[in-house]
Amino acid sequence: MAPKEWSNFHVGRECGHQKWSRQNTPKFTVSSGETVSFDAIDSSNGQLDTSSKASAIKTLDLDHVNPVFGPIYMNDAQPGDVLKVEVLDLQVADWGWSAIIPGFGLLADEFSEPEIKIWELNREAGFAQFKNMRIPLRPFLGCMGLAPANDEELSTVPPTNAGGNMDCRELSVGSTVFLPVQTAGALFSCGDGHAAQGHGEVCGTAIETPIRATLRFELLKNQPWMTAPQFQTPPRAQIPNPLPDLGTYGALGIAPDLSATRNLIQWLVQTKGLTRSEAYILASVAGDLQIAEVVNVPNFEVAMTLPLGIFS
Amino acid sequence: MAPKEWSNFHVGRECGHQKWSRQNTPKFTVSSGETVSFDAIDSSNGQLDTSSKASAIKTLDLDHVNPVFGPIYMNDAQPGDVLKVEVLDLQVADWGWSAIIPGFGLLADEFSEPEIKIWELNREAGFAQFKNMRIPLRPFLGCMGLAPANDEELSTVPPTNAGGNMDCRELSVGSTVFLPVQTAGALFSCGDGHAAQGHGEVCGTAIETPIRATLRFELLKNQPWMTAPQFQTPPRAQIPNPLPDLGTYGALGIAPDLSATRNLIQWLVQTKGLTRSEAYILASVAGDLQIAEVVNVPNFEVAMTLPLGIFS
Repeated sequence: MAPKEWSNFHVGRECGHQKWSRQNTPKFTVSSGETVSFDAIDSSNGQLDTSSKASAIKTLDLDHVNPVFGPIYMNDAQPGDVLKVEVLDLQVADWGWSAIIPGFGLLADEFSEPEIKIWELNREAGFAQFKNMRIPLRPFLGCMGLAPANDEELSTVPPTNAGGNMDCRELSVGSTVFLPVQTAGALFSCGDGHAAQGHGEVCGTAIETPIRATLRFELLKNQPWMTAPQFQTPPRAQIPNPLPDLGTYGALGIAPDLSATRNLIQWLVQTKGLTRSEAYILASVAGDLQIAEVVNVPNFEVAMTLPLGIFS
Repeated sequence: MAPKEWSNFHVGRECGHQKWSRQNTPKFTVSSGETVSFDAIDSSNGQLDTSSKASAIKTLDLDHVNPVFGPIYMNDAQPGDVLKVEVLDLQVADWGWSAIIPGFGLLADEFSEPEIKIWELNREAGFAQFKNMRIPLRPFLGCMGLAPANDEELSTVPPTNAGGNMDCRELSVGSTVFLPVQTAGALFSCGDGHAAQGHGEVCGTAIETPIRATLRFELLKNQPWMTAPQFQTPPRAQIPNPLPDLGTYGALGIAPDLSATRNLIQWLVQTKGLTRSEAYILASVAGDLQIAEVVNVPNFEVAMTLPLGIFS
């Protein structure tokens, strides 16, 4: 698919890199108000495809995952400014993958065997099928970020106050993200297409997919009060949801060990006939972790909820 | 106001207690399918009223806060069963309070001075006014819980796997909560009326208010797999919201120190003209803490969002 015609610039797959660094050479310079399209391979960096089996997870080379694409140089951007990024358009591929990667994910101690789930993405209908369940597609870029303030080279895996691997499901089409500029030109890159993910991304992966993105950039001068990423989402009525509104089911975890996830998995196994691994992946792509209360010392409480429409 | 006529039993304010204990004498016995109304004083246990000033927070006797009302004995309930509680009706008073209590709350280190906010609750219109903002009312019982398995006497402040002070905003009218029975008869009590609260209850208080509740109880025999509270919420279309749908604004906190709250407060101070204390209370009663990602080690990420409709 060609980039949308509203885009003046294009960043292709050849612009992949795996370090946040102000030494990265920018591909081009944009001015405030301009639009850029990006073509990003999936977070496995092409190591997985529709024919991959669980054995491919065992041999996955983690030194090559999570590439981002760029950077682009924002004219006049300086530390203390904020880069405003509007998500205009996102096009996912017709397939994606999720996996349980040993040693990775919230419940790594409990899920030691590799698993893979290859998804067929029904882009027209707006969902992906998983047994008798439908996962609504709500694509976003897992990674949108800027180069750091000094000469260090940072991995693209942990997010920082300059953004990066935020994996924030709210950053879909119609949303805007604000990133505090750390170095001259901001040096924005993005990647890590997600077709769907719940808050938490608990098993460690979303529905990972190649993605084409069209983003509009604006420079907000002199906003030093903003020290970490912020965002704005569109009205709920503008967020497509192909599934009926049947409320949610939620599991609580008392105390700060995030047992809410384990408890929701148990409910799925008990009442929906899923295996524990299936339930863990489902929780990752469609379940939302929320902090119910963080004040009733010492027992903080986390809720994990799942929209019941996915079972309809 | 008289209890709704569908209620067969009534628990009055004289049934207040402050310990979860299986030694508490039940007020009466109910059978599966029966309905009970409760009349609960606010969580200050009557120490605060509409004339209270910040000085009343300094002298608040914390040994008398957070009473719950009951217990009631569920016929035939045994450990391994689950008590299903449907929230049929909740009626709040025409006033409520929120406070910053020194030493209490997520950002206790940063807010050392007592503050109080007395709310007028516009029950007809469904919101409470705060300067030029409107907080939608969505009442719930902060506390719904059961007696513990053994002879210990537990404070009503921290929640446990038998429920209690869950402070989970989803447990409003139309929701159902499932509580794992620990001891014969379950011994259910409730209280701690909240007229509105965000996920997290970050400043330590919601809009605290006296409340009348009507609950329907059902006993689910032999469900030992459920080891902590779970819940179900109604379709979103059935949840009243008097404010326009304008999307949300969110602040991220990178790393697990919950700085998302601090960052949202900073945004409110910077762009909405609130004092830091006002912003902290607003975040507590209308902001939602979510766990955006919990897998990109070592930088977990929390989002705090606020519906933009409150500024309309």
